[in-house]
Amino acid sequence: MNNIEIGHGSGGKLTRDLISSLFLKYLSSSELHSMEDAATINIHSGKTAFTTDSYVIRPLFFPGGDIGKLSVCGTVNDLAVSGAIPEYLSLSFIIEEGFSLNHMEEIVKSIAEEADRSALKIVTGDTKVVERGKCDGIYINTAGIGTIVRTFTVNDVSSGDVVIVTGTIGDHGTAVALARNEFDIETKVESDCASLDSLLTPVFDINGVKWMRDPTRGGAATVLVELSEETNLGIRIVEENIPVREDVQFIADMLGYDPLYLANEGKAIIIASEEAAGSVLEKLHTHPLGEYAVIIGEISSDFQGLRLKTKIGGERPLDMLEEDQLPRIC
Amino acid sequence: MNNIEIGHGSGGKLTRDLISSLFLKYLSSSELHSMEDAATINIHSGKTAFTTDSYVIRPLFFPGGDIGKLSVCGTVNDLAVSGAIPEYLSLSFIIEEGFSLNHMEEIVKSIAEEADRSALKIVTGDTKVVERGKCDGIYINTAGIGTIVRTFTVNDVSSGDVVIVTGTIGDHGTAVALARNEFDIETKVESDCASLDSLLTPVFDINGVKWMRDPTRGGAATVLVELSEETNLGIRIVEENIPVREDVQFIADMLGYDPLYLANEGKAIIIASEEAAGSVLEKLHTHPLGEYAVIIGEISSDFQGLRLKTKIGGERPLDMLEEDQLPRIC
Repeated sequence: MNNIEIGHGSGGKLTRDLISSLFLKYLSSSELHSMEDAATINIHSGKTAFTTDSYVIRPLFFPGGDIGKLSVCGTVNDLAVSGAIPEYLSLSFIIEEGFSLNHMEEIVKSIAEEADRSALKIVTGDTKVVERGKCDGIYINTAGIGTIVRTFTVNDVSSGDVVIVTGTIGDHGTAVALARNEFDIETKVESDCASLDSLLTPVFDINGVKWMRDPTRGGAATVLVELSEETNLGIRIVEENIPVREDVQFIADMLGYDPLYLANEGKAIIIASEEAAGSVLEKLHTHPLGEYAVIIGEISSDFQGLRLKTKIGGERPLDMLEEDQLPRIC
Repeated sequence: MNNIEIGHGSGGKLTRDLISSLFLKYLSSSELHSMEDAATINIHSGKTAFTTDSYVIRPLFFPGGDIGKLSVCGTVNDLAVSGAIPEYLSLSFIIEEGFSLNHMEEIVKSIAEEADRSALKIVTGDTKVVERGKCDGIYINTAGIGTIVRTFTVNDVSSGDVVIVTGTIGDHGTAVALARNEFDIETKVESDCASLDSLLTPVFDINGVKWMRDPTRGGAATVLVELSEETNLGIRIVEENIPVREDVQFIADMLGYDPLYLANEGKAIIIASEEAAGSVLEKLHTHPLGEYAVIIGEISSDFQGLRLKTKIGGERPLDMLEEDQLPRIC
């Protein structure tokens, strides 16, 4: 038996075999091992962050990660940009009948490794199996709980603040697009898929840090358009300061993508006061994931919306896209 | 535009339109309306229950409920049988391109109504869209958080305790099987799909209540086999005391199902001391969902495993099934 069968989702013997032979082999929390309907967890008093995402990325394995790693990083990052320390994760699989158990094991290993990196406990889960053709290999949902140590709000964002990005943009979108094998291009571009908690937590304490967001689906431009709408402030970003890998830019140009709208899975946008910017960058630069952190723009009350100051000197407005350049990127 | 499009999962304009025109219309929590990456929630100090389930039921609409109602009830019930008061819910959709927006609206309305019934706040969510043929209409994941007010453990279960079921078994499995239209049978059987928190919470306080579980996939027999394995105790249930609707039994006989293995979505099994049983039943009988609550068996140290005392007088062992009688029942 090397593939997932319908019975693995039955809640009966086959489900328990899968849980004990595969899931519990890699996922070690006592809460999960107790196999109760609900896990008992301890939460520090105070404010708690709660978030969820379903992951339907295609393909399941791509340079720099896989759907398992992504399903941990994505939820960790949603907690981290909310000023929270990630603590507990739920994990739910929808698996297609016939899916390889070897691939399943690779995915569970990735999940375990990535959760360990953030000392995150996977405490509760679920497995459903659907018939052949009724899903696309595997979909994963995670929900995450964290303790909020710093409250960020768009209300604190004001004119004169700077826009920092923690590294190069568009890597994830480009790597996944190429992994779909629709293009005959060979490159070394890898997804930036990474948990950002260890990068961002040290920045929480810096006075003048106002707001954070991870630019996933829709990319950096979408996050900044949303921010400009929520604050009624203008945001000007400077094209020549925006860090884009040369090969990412080359491929984007060739395929007609704009890196500003390509998904990232290991980057954050941080809004900070001009005074705080130096300390923020200094802190970010000490971390491998923040090596290329840089100021890419500023907040202004002189106009509304997002504007790009282009390399050739002009300025043009950027809006949210109707649709993804690349569906099923996460 | 009357159907879900790929762009509804883009995280861009179409996603926001869907959220504001449909989700926020029915789901009213301020946490959800703030549309942050993670919701900020307040959790009482003490022990917290955390659980998740994905719902892949087929068909999406069935007598007595739909996938939306089920995705709230299922998670509420996992919290309630864990001795917790349900408080917060996350909600994540994976939707197939082309899915009817009218059906989507019906589902969201069901979710809102059922959550209101338990004063449960839906605080965070996610929407992904996959291409035609890559899912089966819609899959839903919910994760739930509740405050534990009573800790139940299998370690408290002991010889002489009684097994109570809160009502008739096999209703959900039968209703869903018939809703698949594979059989030419007309009946009035409806799913028992219901949130059990208001039924079970009043029982938490009764001394001698030791353990609870909701018998969903795998049915009552699977829950009791698991309990016997975890406690190393025997469980004897008495066939003539097990409440099964006449039409459910009739259909089960005809289709070759055993109601003991059919899924329930609005029933709990409660283990209580013999002394407590009267108070438990009295309390359950005051609630519409507990009207038919009854003792169906007892715990014994004289043997191991689950045994059924049959109507014709004999006794036979019951085991867990390898597979579901009916896949995709929840």
